[in-house]
Amino acid sequence: MKKPIGIFDSGIGGLTVAYAVKKLMPTQPIIYFGDTAHLPYGDKSATSLQVYTIKTIDFLIEQGCEIILIACNSASAAAYELAKEYAASRAKIFDVIEPTVKYVSQNFANQNLGLIGTRQTVNSQVYAQKIKEKNANITLKSLATPLLAPMIEHGFFNNQVSKSALNEYLSNPKIQDIDAIILGCTHYPLIKKEIDVFYQQKVSIIDASNIIAQEVKNFLVNNDLLNQKQEENVKDKFYVSDYTLSFESTTKIFFNQKINLELYKLWE
Amino acid sequence: MKKPIGIFDSGIGGLTVAYAVKKLMPTQPIIYFGDTAHLPYGDKSATSLQVYTIKTIDFLIEQGCEIILIACNSASAAAYELAKEYAASRAKIFDVIEPTVKYVSQNFANQNLGLIGTRQTVNSQVYAQKIKEKNANITLKSLATPLLAPMIEHGFFNNQVSKSALNEYLSNPKIQDIDAIILGCTHYPLIKKEIDVFYQQKVSIIDASNIIAQEVKNFLVNNDLLNQKQEENVKDKFYVSDYTLSFESTTKIFFNQKINLELYKLWE
Repeated sequence: MKKPIGIFDSGIGGLTVAYAVKKLMPTQPIIYFGDTAHLPYGDKSATSLQVYTIKTIDFLIEQGCEIILIACNSASAAAYELAKEYAASRAKIFDVIEPTVKYVSQNFANQNLGLIGTRQTVNSQVYAQKIKEKNANITLKSLATPLLAPMIEHGFFNNQVSKSALNEYLSNPKIQDIDAIILGCTHYPLIKKEIDVFYQQKVSIIDASNIIAQEVKNFLVNNDLLNQKQEENVKDKFYVSDYTLSFESTTKIFFNQKINLELYKLWE
Repeated sequence: MKKPIGIFDSGIGGLTVAYAVKKLMPTQPIIYFGDTAHLPYGDKSATSLQVYTIKTIDFLIEQGCEIILIACNSASAAAYELAKEYAASRAKIFDVIEPTVKYVSQNFANQNLGLIGTRQTVNSQVYAQKIKEKNANITLKSLATPLLAPMIEHGFFNNQVSKSALNEYLSNPKIQDIDAIILGCTHYPLIKKEIDVFYQQKVSIIDASNIIAQEVKNFLVNNDLLNQKQEENVKDKFYVSDYTLSFESTTKIFFNQKINLELYKLWE
C-alpha cells in the first residue's frame, strides 16, 4: 500500500500513537495532523469535537489516506461513530478506544479496572458502555484527570509537580481497589513509570499505543495492504493547524526525535 | 452610558478582570465573551490570536459595545495594536498590558521587576518593550510559566501541586533578585497568596485587575459616560464559543459566583 495512513489528534500527544505505528510498520508512510488551533480537546464539547473530526477526515482523505486513525481519546469518545458513518466507503476509520476495550475484555475479565483521561473522555462514558457490552464482568472505575495532559505537554514529568498531581488524582476514592488502570489519553505513556511507582507495581498499567498500532497492522496484513519495502521518495508528513516553535520542540518528548511541523490552515 | 462594556478572553480567566470592572462600576452593564473553542490562548501563535481578536471585536461591536477590554495578556500582547487600528472610531479598545506598564513605571522606577505569564505573552517581549519606552530604569526579568493557567483552571491552587509548580518556576535563575513581580495572566490572582508565601512577603506582587478597571473607569468619567444609576432591565451577558458544564462551574472561582454562560457559535 503506497497510500499513507492518516493519524490525527488535538495536538502533538497523538505522536505517541504515531510512534508506535511507525515502529511496528516502518515501511508504511503516515500523514499526521495535529489540530493545535483547538488544542486541548479534553475540555471541549462533544459537538465541537465532532465538527473538528469531520473536517480533519475530509482533509486526510483529500491527502490520499484510505486508513485514518483517531489518535486521541477525547475525539474517539465524541466522534468515532460519526466518523465511521461520515467516511463510509471512502476510508477505514480506527479509534483508540475500541482496540483497548477489546484487549481489556480478553485479558482482564472478572477484574476491577481503573480509567483516567480527560473530562471529555471520562464523562462520555464510552469506555464504560463498550466494556459493558463485552460481558466480561469487568467493573470500571473512572476519574477525569484534566491537569495531566497540559502538565506533560509543558514538560512536567518525573518531578515533584507530576508526583504531587498523581498523588492527588490517584488517591481519589473513585478509583481505589483496582487490578489494572487504562491510560485513557495519548499523553499518559510519558508518566507510565511514575504511575507504576505510585502503585508500587501492584496495578497493571494499560498503555494502549502498541495495541492500537497492532490493530491497524492486522487490518493491513489481512487485506494485503502492508508495504513490503520502504518506498523511495515517500516521506512522512506532519501538519498542525497552528504553528509555534514550542509545539515543534515538544514533539521530541512524544516521538523520541524532533519533527518538522508544517502549518496547514484548515480553519481559515 | 447605557452601552455595555465588552470584555473578552480566551476563556473564563478574564472573569477576574470582569469582576474588578463590575466591583468598581456596578452600574455599568457588561458583555463578556470567552473564546472557549480556542482556549487556551497562551500557546497559540500571534497570527491566530490576531484573527480571533478581530472577529471577537466585530461581534462585540455588533452587540453595541463602544468600549472593549481585551482581558487576556496573550491576546493583548499579540493583537492590541491591530485591534485599535481595526476598531478605529467604532470602539475604544483597552488592553491589560498598557495600564500595568504605566502603573509599574510610576511606582517601581529604578527597580528590578519579574514577569510571569504564558509563552505567548512572555515571548512577545511586549512588556519589555513598553517598559523600556517609559525610561524608568526598570530591569525586567521574565519567565514563561505555561502550566499555571491550566493548573488553576482545573482547581489546583492552595495545595501541594500548586506549591510544587510555583517552587519549580519561581526558583528559575531567570527571575531572581527582583523587587516586585507582575502577574502577567488574568488567572494568576488566584495564586497571589501562594506567590506571596513563596517570596516570604519580600517581593511586591502586582495584580493588575484593579489597575485595569480603574483605567476604564477614568476614561468613562473623563468622557462623561459613566452610568449614575443602575438601569432597569439591563443585564450583564456572558457568552462562550464552546459550552461545557465544567466551564460553567469553573466561573465561580474567577467571578466569586457561578455565572450562566450562553453559547454563541462565533466560529460556525
